[in-house]
Amino acid sequence: MKDHIGRTGCVTLVGAGPGDPDLLTVKASRTIRAASIIVHDRLVSPEIMALAPTDARRIDVGKMPRRHPVPQENINAILVDLALSGHDVVRLKGGDPFIFGRGGEEMEALRDAGVEVDVVPGITAAQAASASTRVPLTQRGMVTGLRYVTGHCKADAPLDLDWAGLADPETTLVVYMGAANMAEISARLIAHGMPGDLPVLAVSSATTPRETRLVSRLDSISRDATEADVTAPVLFIVGRVVDLHRPDAVRDIVAGARRRARAHA
Amino acid sequence: MKDHIGRTGCVTLVGAGPGDPDLLTVKASRTIRAASIIVHDRLVSPEIMALAPTDARRIDVGKMPRRHPVPQENINAILVDLALSGHDVVRLKGGDPFIFGRGGEEMEALRDAGVEVDVVPGITAAQAASASTRVPLTQRGMVTGLRYVTGHCKADAPLDLDWAGLADPETTLVVYMGAANMAEISARLIAHGMPGDLPVLAVSSATTPRETRLVSRLDSISRDATEADVTAPVLFIVGRVVDLHRPDAVRDIVAGARRRARAHA
Repeated sequence: MKDHIGRTGCVTLVGAGPGDPDLLTVKASRTIRAASIIVHDRLVSPEIMALAPTDARRIDVGKMPRRHPVPQENINAILVDLALSGHDVVRLKGGDPFIFGRGGEEMEALRDAGVEVDVVPGITAAQAASASTRVPLTQRGMVTGLRYVTGHCKADAPLDLDWAGLADPETTLVVYMGAANMAEISARLIAHGMPGDLPVLAVSSATTPRETRLVSRLDSISRDATEADVTAPVLFIVGRVVDLHRPDAVRDIVAGARRRARAHA
Repeated sequence: MKDHIGRTGCVTLVGAGPGDPDLLTVKASRTIRAASIIVHDRLVSPEIMALAPTDARRIDVGKMPRRHPVPQENINAILVDLALSGHDVVRLKGGDPFIFGRGGEEMEALRDAGVEVDVVPGITAAQAASASTRVPLTQRGMVTGLRYVTGHCKADAPLDLDWAGLADPETTLVVYMGAANMAEISARLIAHGMPGDLPVLAVSSATTPRETRLVSRLDSISRDATEADVTAPVLFIVGRVVDLHRPDAVRDIVAGARRRARAHA
């Protein structure tokens, strides 16, 4: 991709937030509107991609012709090649590039190639789900902190998490990319002492018109999410703060909520 | 404050982010620009307050005439009274209202009074410090998750944290409001098995012209922060990801970095 422009471009890692263009930062919105090349993930919403100039070049690294995602090393190489060819690139990622976004890996590859990197943070999925459902992530007197983990692991690899440390009902636990492994995650947390009736809120596509919510509890969230067909990407908020959720007749799937209410009766 | 308007207003809890108006969400920026009454904290930057209409009423609950902060119950009462008097209120908080922002308490008081609450998330200090210093909060192969705790406690109360669970070098630990207690926090983490040479990045006023950074390690961060006079509010990022920091001659305080480099030599 080398060409004759003669200068090295820079790459801006931009957090696209949860999907609603109104929840982009002002800087992210301006950066996207001024972009000439955007390298984007599958999770960046169509509403946000529509902000880019019509003549901007769009490179979708979320899928390849045969529907496999582009390997991370190839994405790094694409970014480096574009920058060394003199292009200023907007690298657009769902959420925040530095929270489970692999932005750090891209930054390192770019630095190693002598390319300047700028970073624009984004609202991460946990914050979007929290604001949209009105469930605070921290609450004084109820939890002392907040923890984000990823429930995703490489193919066939076991989930290697500090289960004893995670099983702390005084910390709100948010599981990203956990849909496929929530049965194992909840079972292990319970085995390490988390109460089975700890409330769990599953949120899919928060802040978009496709938002779906499911209220359940730790010992039944996996079954409830499967039954209710809550589709990935799903975020799970595990902890006492979920007790502050007030049902929303329009958006909630109430099967889990009903079961939970019965169990508490 | 009851008056004759005859309808109940609504309260929008708005995250002001880290201080740079460009890092507000688009929705937060629009909400502030349209506000008629803003109830704000001390930590909301002057640059952001300047976005509000000149004739908007500003109520600063970050300080009282004798410089004491307004107690939370009084803030709740101010919000409820304004809404019941028919005013639509923008409640503006540094960072994200639902991450150590006490937004949940205000929401509960408002709901109990029958007032409708909307929430606009904000970039929290950890994300701002991460983007500004180019230190990712998660990094594949290096850490499995991210944890936020508050290092602040009520006057004379001991810090009551799950030290064993916190002492996990595979999780990036971000300590909010920890300037006064970092000596105790670091000592306890080391006592529970965290390596003394684990790198720590302290960031004050991230994303503003007043941003200051200090690179150190767990066993000397408290002394280094005191010596360097890094002033509150300070955010501490503790973990292996700090090894990805590249020095910035303009903004870094290098005393700690030098000591660390010597110790590694």
